[in-house]
Amino acid sequence: MTASLPFNQISASDAAAAIAAGKLTSEALVAACLDRIGARERAVQAWAFIDPELALSQARSRDREPPRSRLHGIPVGIKDVIDTGDMPTEYGSPIHRGHRPHCDAACVAQVRELGGVILGKTVSTEFATRHPNKTRHPLDPTRTPGGSSSGSAAAVADCMVPIAFGTQTSSSIIRPAAFCGVIGYKPSFGLINRAGLKFLSESLDTIGTLTRTVADAALIIEELAGLPAAPFSEVPRRKPRIGLCRTPYWNQADAAAQASLDSAARVLAQAGARVNDVDLADEFGALAETQIAVSSYEFYRALTHERTRFPELISASLASRIAAGGKVTRTQYEAGVALTERCRKRIDDVLRDHDALLAPSAPGEAPTIESTGDPIFGLMWTLLQLPCLTLPYGSGPLGLPLGVQVIGSRAGDTAMFVNAEWIRRALAG
Amino acid sequence: MTASLPFNQISASDAAAAIAAGKLTSEALVAACLDRIGARERAVQAWAFIDPELALSQARSRDREPPRSRLHGIPVGIKDVIDTGDMPTEYGSPIHRGHRPHCDAACVAQVRELGGVILGKTVSTEFATRHPNKTRHPLDPTRTPGGSSSGSAAAVADCMVPIAFGTQTSSSIIRPAAFCGVIGYKPSFGLINRAGLKFLSESLDTIGTLTRTVADAALIIEELAGLPAAPFSEVPRRKPRIGLCRTPYWNQADAAAQASLDSAARVLAQAGARVNDVDLADEFGALAETQIAVSSYEFYRALTHERTRFPELISASLASRIAAGGKVTRTQYEAGVALTERCRKRIDDVLRDHDALLAPSAPGEAPTIESTGDPIFGLMWTLLQLPCLTLPYGSGPLGLPLGVQVIGSRAGDTAMFVNAEWIRRALAG
Repeated sequence: MTASLPFNQISASDAAAAIAAGKLTSEALVAACLDRIGARERAVQAWAFIDPELALSQARSRDREPPRSRLHGIPVGIKDVIDTGDMPTEYGSPIHRGHRPHCDAACVAQVRELGGVILGKTVSTEFATRHPNKTRHPLDPTRTPGGSSSGSAAAVADCMVPIAFGTQTSSSIIRPAAFCGVIGYKPSFGLINRAGLKFLSESLDTIGTLTRTVADAALIIEELAGLPAAPFSEVPRRKPRIGLCRTPYWNQADAAAQASLDSAARVLAQAGARVNDVDLADEFGALAETQIAVSSYEFYRALTHERTRFPELISASLASRIAAGGKVTRTQYEAGVALTERCRKRIDDVLRDHDALLAPSAPGEAPTIESTGDPIFGLMWTLLQLPCLTLPYGSGPLGLPLGVQVIGSRAGDTAMFVNAEWIRRALAG
Repeated sequence: MTASLPFNQISASDAAAAIAAGKLTSEALVAACLDRIGARERAVQAWAFIDPELALSQARSRDREPPRSRLHGIPVGIKDVIDTGDMPTEYGSPIHRGHRPHCDAACVAQVRELGGVILGKTVSTEFATRHPNKTRHPLDPTRTPGGSSSGSAAAVADCMVPIAFGTQTSSSIIRPAAFCGVIGYKPSFGLINRAGLKFLSESLDTIGTLTRTVADAALIIEELAGLPAAPFSEVPRRKPRIGLCRTPYWNQADAAAQASLDSAARVLAQAGARVNDVDLADEFGALAETQIAVSSYEFYRALTHERTRFPELISASLASRIAAGGKVTRTQYEAGVALTERCRKRIDDVLRDHDALLAPSAPGEAPTIESTGDPIFGLMWTLLQLPCLTLPYGSGPLGLPLGVQVIGSRAGDTAMFVNAEWIRRALAG
């Protein structure tokens, strides 16, 4: 651990090691996070629910036990579309105001089993879609932290908590992480169990994490999914083969985002990576609209209770997406699935010749709070079920963070962590 | 409609047509079902919850409206692992006794939107696994109705309701339907939206139906998923190409089940079908153990809340399966997924040359109530995500029903209905 840092700024990996070594208590760590929240929450508004005494009492219980896992004593923020049995879960919607589930989602119960502390619920946009909620960008209150994992990204960026769960259906982990300058990790589809997640689009919804280090993203997925530990000691010996993938949506990135990705590619080549262009043409260009058709078809159905009982409590923008979803025919849906399966085979082939792809994380820096930003650079990767991780790199015209997205092969999350860490270190110079 | 039948024995399709034509009221239909339940529930014990007045009031509301869909006014039973906002949902476990979800699952809300009547909750085994619950076989109270959709199969077989939702992770729709002598339909994976389903194994759990006619199975899936109407008028002109698939597990079928399948194949060939053997050897033989590894890995995680908080309320048999699931490594899980994907490609090839496969539905007739029967003949088809439908055919040594399973190509549910109906008529002679 970096002893000079305030506790709330320490990474989860370092904090857990310090707790296991008896040099830090979970209570002190949680208290430091709560202090930070106390000082900053009025400006950032990252939390949908927090009960300091409940968090501290969990921490004290953990301090009375030997470590259960590498997560022991670590506070974790839970996006408010994931059920918690001891805290409200409102799915970012007034329809569910005050709702308290009767049990924990699988990933929450797993964190508790592993000795983690559930710090509180982080703000989600409405049902994890695009309609903004209250959270502000930690560096500029006129800007969005991105969505839909708004509170998770802002809380981690502002050092209120070292790890928070997010979810991604379009670009809801990668985009806010890039805007806020943290590590956003969307696992291979299905790696974190989804029992107790409020479904929007079940063939796409993916639980992932927001952290400040690559090692922390690896730590939590390894503990939850039973993955082998990523061999970070091999990082210095890697010379990854990187595919620079501007994607068919390159024109939707602004000048700063384009320059950032191109700069990253040059720096990585100079550091010894093999970097070549990967041009995903023709069919891949239809994946964005395919993602929209497939997800809309599904959320028209998933939100039937809400759209039939409480239409007046659904935002106009979501209502119009739901209505569009009701018009997608099963035949159109199946055509989208078939296209996706063809593209999955093709990207699997591409990833046999590359250790990772490098792509934009978002079209630019965080826009103003009227929107949560454009998910365009997440859609195809979510549809393709590949593990993705965004690294902070460069900044936009206002000085706000930009990110570059590292994409690994399907179920190749462990290798992706090592390659992402190599890339992070090379970009840090 | 068949006017001479008591209302509770009419199919959903016929009843809905009669309601639309003003010849039957939903109230009279629901009342007839409730009368049947009143007469038979003590023996069959198919229902986890039923509130006659709540069902009748829904029916009266529907009778005051023009038909909303082809399901208008039709009573539907809901397996008790699917959330209902106005009825308890206990997932077949004492851990969740008295639990009342705060909103309807997607498929329940869709049935309401379509004008259907939620008649009540049907008994599930513990978390839709194998440990028996209270339901008895309608024809023999010493025998199991099968599981895990025990109540749904028994209620439909006993003419307490024309349609009930079931779920299948292993063989939990096909097996009880075969035992009870009704139509069990497991759709292509994901066809019925799963928001609000209690997850056991999210990559396998599939919502489907129990009905007494093939047309009724088609009706409800068409309305829920937006599928085109199955062209049953084409049935007489079909001469389907049928692959007789004894499966790698043939030796686990008893003499009666083997004779029944072989007899069905002969009858279909005599009726004009092209019937040839499909021998799924080598890798397919490992699919049963793969299904067990993949599902156990997932339900160890999905049931974390229950296994960590209430271990004493979990049956010994489920506890041992959960413990085994905790020992499945992610590497083993991924190997199972990879094998499954290879077999999916191979079965897709087989199904390009065949309109349907014909396979055993269960190892024999219903065993005694200490078990819910062996799921062996469902495991591989669930893993392969193919649409499956069991048709009653023949009987066992005790005179209880046997079934044959019709399997269609992935996302080919509409064609499967037409082929299954051709097969049903041919088998009826």
